[in-house]
Amino acid sequence: MNKEDYFIKQFSNSKFIGDDAAVVGKWSYSMDAFFENVHFKKEWMSLRQIAYKSMIVNISDAIAMNSYPKYALLTVAIPKSYSNDELKDLAKGFKKAAKEFDIEIIGGDTIANEKLDISITIISKIKNPIYRNGVKKDDLVCFTGDLGSCKKDLEKLFKNKKVSKNSKFIKPKLSADFFYEASKYINASLDISDGLFFELERLSKQSKLGFEFFEKISDEIGTSGEEYEILFTFEEKNRKKIEKIAKKHGVKLNIFAKAIKGKYRTKVKNHHF
Amino acid sequence: MNKEDYFIKQFSNSKFIGDDAAVVGKWSYSMDAFFENVHFKKEWMSLRQIAYKSMIVNISDAIAMNSYPKYALLTVAIPKSYSNDELKDLAKGFKKAAKEFDIEIIGGDTIANEKLDISITIISKIKNPIYRNGVKKDDLVCFTGDLGSCKKDLEKLFKNKKVSKNSKFIKPKLSADFFYEASKYINASLDISDGLFFELERLSKQSKLGFEFFEKISDEIGTSGEEYEILFTFEEKNRKKIEKIAKKHGVKLNIFAKAIKGKYRTKVKNHHF
Repeated sequence: MNKEDYFIKQFSNSKFIGDDAAVVGKWSYSMDAFFENVHFKKEWMSLRQIAYKSMIVNISDAIAMNSYPKYALLTVAIPKSYSNDELKDLAKGFKKAAKEFDIEIIGGDTIANEKLDISITIISKIKNPIYRNGVKKDDLVCFTGDLGSCKKDLEKLFKNKKVSKNSKFIKPKLSADFFYEASKYINASLDISDGLFFELERLSKQSKLGFEFFEKISDEIGTSGEEYEILFTFEEKNRKKIEKIAKKHGVKLNIFAKAIKGKYRTKVKNHHF
Repeated sequence: MNKEDYFIKQFSNSKFIGDDAAVVGKWSYSMDAFFENVHFKKEWMSLRQIAYKSMIVNISDAIAMNSYPKYALLTVAIPKSYSNDELKDLAKGFKKAAKEFDIEIIGGDTIANEKLDISITIISKIKNPIYRNGVKKDDLVCFTGDLGSCKKDLEKLFKNKKVSKNSKFIKPKLSADFFYEASKYINASLDISDGLFFELERLSKQSKLGFEFFEKISDEIGTSGEEYEILFTFEEKNRKKIEKIAKKHGVKLNIFAKAIKGKYRTKVKNHHF
């Protein structure tokens, strides 16, 4: 067990822990860190892009639970060397994401630090939460979009090569509208932050089922992290309805497996930077 | 204007920002960072003490708004070198504070980092919020407990001297029960994290009033940060009732000033570590 999992295990008697967000009544709460040299290197992205992505990865958690982000709290630890223009750029990134998803930034904490470390809490309205433990036997298993480019772009960045500013690694694209509309047909879901194989293991653990793949999925696809595509399951009878909604929103669906008795475990290591 | 204030100013069109917590309907949200080498040095305290204090300083914000902490989300960035026993100690500190104030830890994020950096969001029930802008002219101005020891202990720690494990700098004491009971007589309040003079300036700015001191307050008292005593104001007619409640809870009151027309500004620098 790695250190992070060991630490989280100390709180495992909480019924709230284990999903993308904690649901309390009509609200859901998600919190994610976005730290320099842990989640990004400053050479890779502009400050505006960093702030924007830090918001999006948090909003992604909220959406994957079928909740509607409303408010955000930001902890922003900022190097003393930053100029006022740099602070403005950083703020612009937060505000851009907030505006796009109609979120109000209501508070937080700002401190001087050695490096740029961000932690965000997203407060969302939730009516019909979708959990990781909702997979039913015989469900079809599906992910949105294309996987693999984030891993490739991350490898490029590590080699000091440039990536497009439209790279999903720099600017994740969330399929929010599709997901909300399809949500009533969806049994279980989570976002793909640590790679498909890892997320499937999480689904399997929470739902106590395994998966039968329709065809082999390569490591390039299965271990690409920070994709922020949505992994979800649904009953065969709802397939046509979901496909229609996906088409309407221009979202590509990849139905790649079926839920079966048993368990799914991956051997590959976590490729999340 | 310092960098943190400049950054926060970028979000100043939000009506929520400017108090210890943001109030949204029946809930209040506060978020505070507690970072290694910014808020503490690891030589100063045990991991359990660090985790405990990180919770308490957040809970303090909630109490100073007259809200009741219910849930917490934790971002904990942990050095890779920590042993499982150290992780357990850290978890114990969070859980101790949570138990003391009947808070449930419902989620968060754990990552590997160079140093121990904590950010906490406290979600609290609130019925009758007390804001910083509630001071009325002629209000009496008061703080709980004794101020000054935290500054002295911090100076000792910087000189590599030991301080008592009961030092308020290590283990802040919150006057929650007193404050909740007295709250109906209180017009404005905030906790003393950056020193009395600084907090008075905040009160003055928000309430657009000044203060007439009954006697001079020394810098030793006025600039001692991280005290987590409560600074509050009330009408003269409620003085006896408040004093009675303070006596019942064994809380010392220091009524030291009166709210007057004008503004209060401090020249001393922020002594918050």
